[in-house]
Amino acid sequence: MKMNATKPRLVFIVSDGTGITAENFSQSILAQFETPFQQIRIPFVDSPEKAYKAVETINQATAEENNQPIIFTTLVRPEINAIVSKAKGLMLDMFQTFVAPIEQALGMKSTHAMNRLHHNADTEAYKNRIEAINYSLAHDDGQSSQNLAAAKVILVGVSRVGKTPTSLYLAMQYGLKAANYPLIPEDFERGVLPKDLAPFKTKIFGLSIDPQRLCEIRNERRPGSNYAKLENCRYEINEASAMMKRESIPSVNTTSKSIEEIATTILQAIRSDKTILG
Amino acid sequence: MKMNATKPRLVFIVSDGTGITAENFSQSILAQFETPFQQIRIPFVDSPEKAYKAVETINQATAEENNQPIIFTTLVRPEINAIVSKAKGLMLDMFQTFVAPIEQALGMKSTHAMNRLHHNADTEAYKNRIEAINYSLAHDDGQSSQNLAAAKVILVGVSRVGKTPTSLYLAMQYGLKAANYPLIPEDFERGVLPKDLAPFKTKIFGLSIDPQRLCEIRNERRPGSNYAKLENCRYEINEASAMMKRESIPSVNTTSKSIEEIATTILQAIRSDKTILG
Repeated sequence: MKMNATKPRLVFIVSDGTGITAENFSQSILAQFETPFQQIRIPFVDSPEKAYKAVETINQATAEENNQPIIFTTLVRPEINAIVSKAKGLMLDMFQTFVAPIEQALGMKSTHAMNRLHHNADTEAYKNRIEAINYSLAHDDGQSSQNLAAAKVILVGVSRVGKTPTSLYLAMQYGLKAANYPLIPEDFERGVLPKDLAPFKTKIFGLSIDPQRLCEIRNERRPGSNYAKLENCRYEINEASAMMKRESIPSVNTTSKSIEEIATTILQAIRSDKTILG
Repeated sequence: MKMNATKPRLVFIVSDGTGITAENFSQSILAQFETPFQQIRIPFVDSPEKAYKAVETINQATAEENNQPIIFTTLVRPEINAIVSKAKGLMLDMFQTFVAPIEQALGMKSTHAMNRLHHNADTEAYKNRIEAINYSLAHDDGQSSQNLAAAKVILVGVSRVGKTPTSLYLAMQYGLKAANYPLIPEDFERGVLPKDLAPFKTKIFGLSIDPQRLCEIRNERRPGSNYAKLENCRYEINEASAMMKRESIPSVNTTSKSIEEIATTILQAIRSDKTILG
């Protein structure tokens, strides 16, 4: 057994922007290795001074380790990149690695401008995103049936199936106005969808879940309640599933899915613009 | 002038997971080129059948174009990767490009398991994330002063400065319980922070904004109102800034920042665990 078997390997993410995308990406790469890592993000490295400071930070941290760190970089400006690349460690240049072959394929140079266009605060896309978040908040849990015509999707399902996080994620990540409506015992007794939803049937998407999992989630919220009982969860889910089937509403089972996976499955079903394929 | 000067180049993102990280990443790379792109995400390509279907889709779409498409892939299993890599286009393998050098540096093979650990629905991290979203929703806009002790950060600022999207983003992306509290004219008249916040001063972080920008944002919400008037915006922001200064509350100006940039700046200020450096 090695002495440092459990000591995490240092991983730096150095970016001239937030470094969030690079952090997410490095996480999924590192998850492929059965050894512990400690990720450290160094954002906003957009000047030579900050680049020198990043190198110093990395080299100091590394001096105390037996192993070289892994360094992911996304640095657009060549002069900044040149400085950071002097840090001691395994350099993984996420920027140049992909920009170079694209330049060649397009027969065109990249701008090398620190570009944050896709979430710059002044763009139309950004405004849409903020508007979508506000919309989804105002239309959470059937709070408002006003302006449902503006929704791109209306999620339905029993309490605690995952409607709220999914709606907010769709708004935050895709600027998509997502309303959500609970299906409650009164709806099951009437045997029809909440009447506010009737005019918008083509926008409705259902979330389902395994009764056992729903029972666990509800018990954390209201331990020992009738609401959380397995029998009651089973009843509500059966009724909701029957209703979705009757009304031909597409649905996804959220039991072992992350918010990203649920959102992606919904986008595959509703997007007709071919930006995502099913 | 070229005939196809404005025809967007096709870009495919093929992933065995959601492909969201790869999509975000490819967007920031493509933003470096002054030519239009059309991104098409093909998620959940986790079987040979789906891999063959993806190749067919790409080749069919490409047959109608003059230019080869750009194809970003994140496919963990070699047999799936081998199939997709036969598609016609510029292949950019985001997975193997980085896994290979890390394997060498660590002296260890990657698991090649389709791994979604970091946002799997059963993990503690995932539970924390859902809990944080619920917490941030319940503590949005000063709705509840109960359990503020559980907050990791309490954002303050005038109405429409960006508190809600930032709180939700911190919860969604980092599982961080983020409350937010409005600073309103009554607080300025009293000249002290809302009294519920007094015990938690070390957790408070301020958001500021330029008056002109605030005026625009408020005018979209309530056109022509006193609330939206430039003069009133200027008054509220001055008072809020003076209060933050008096109470030694750190703050960030949100005017030209994206949600990601605001969140990153806050994390730099509050994280003492060295997962992000300032």
